[in-house]
Amino acid sequence: MDRHPVELLIEKADTAINREDFDTLMAIYAEDAVLVVKPGLEARGRDQIRKAFVAIADHFGHSLAVEQAGLVVLEAGDTALVLARTVVSATTLPPTVRNATYVFRRDPGAGWLCAIDNSYGHDLMIQDEG
Amino acid sequence: MDRHPVELLIEKADTAINREDFDTLMAIYAEDAVLVVKPGLEARGRDQIRKAFVAIADHFGHSLAVEQAGLVVLEAGDTALVLARTVVSATTLPPTVRNATYVFRRDPGAGWLCAIDNSYGHDLMIQDEG
Repeated sequence: MDRHPVELLIEKADTAINREDFDTLMAIYAEDAVLVVKPGLEARGRDQIRKAFVAIADHFGHSLAVEQAGLVVLEAGDTALVLARTVVSATTLPPTVRNATYVFRRDPGAGWLCAIDNSYGHDLMIQDEG
Repeated sequence: MDRHPVELLIEKADTAINREDFDTLMAIYAEDAVLVVKPGLEARGRDQIRKAFVAIADHFGHSLAVEQAGLVVLEAGDTALVLARTVVSATTLPPTVRNATYVFRRDPGAGWLCAIDNSYGHDLMIQDEG
């Protein structure tokens, strides 16, 4: 079965994160995208998101590695919801699986772009309920 | 804190489901929306979604009750991701909590509409991986 274009973009984003290639990474996000940096902390827009990724790379001593252990795409017109098992690891972090949720939007010019990047999935709610 | 308009729509949708008021319910969905009826089975577009809700109501002997035990909205421009703890129950179904994921889109004319309704959240992946 052909892979969904959004799946290829996520693969590209993971490679870019692992290489700290932030130019390639930022091209995958919508101008008004939101990234959940950690529960309770959000980065909004490409500038803030780039700064967050730079800080995260630094925090993990440039050893952060991200990959997807599984992924489902639900598409409705120009909107796609991705449910993923995202595995993050670093020298100071044993491989950790997150039930991530991503939302992509199809732009008439730019094609699919990530609008919402929430690798914490429902773990956000624990913080919210606290 | 003011509640997000999408939160009010979800409350309206839950009330409509519980009353089997399918006209009100359908007005909350985008024309090209997708509903996960159960893992592996999707309804696409308002006609299919209405038929699915009619069938579900019948399946549960008109006793289905839906409510949200918690809810977080992440908004990016005209796209909103909702992470919810959705509780479904019926005479034949003890209260069951689902980590649901919903995506809403803001239409210039109609306002916020539900584009993707996946009350199963990551449970979809179990089916996908099977």
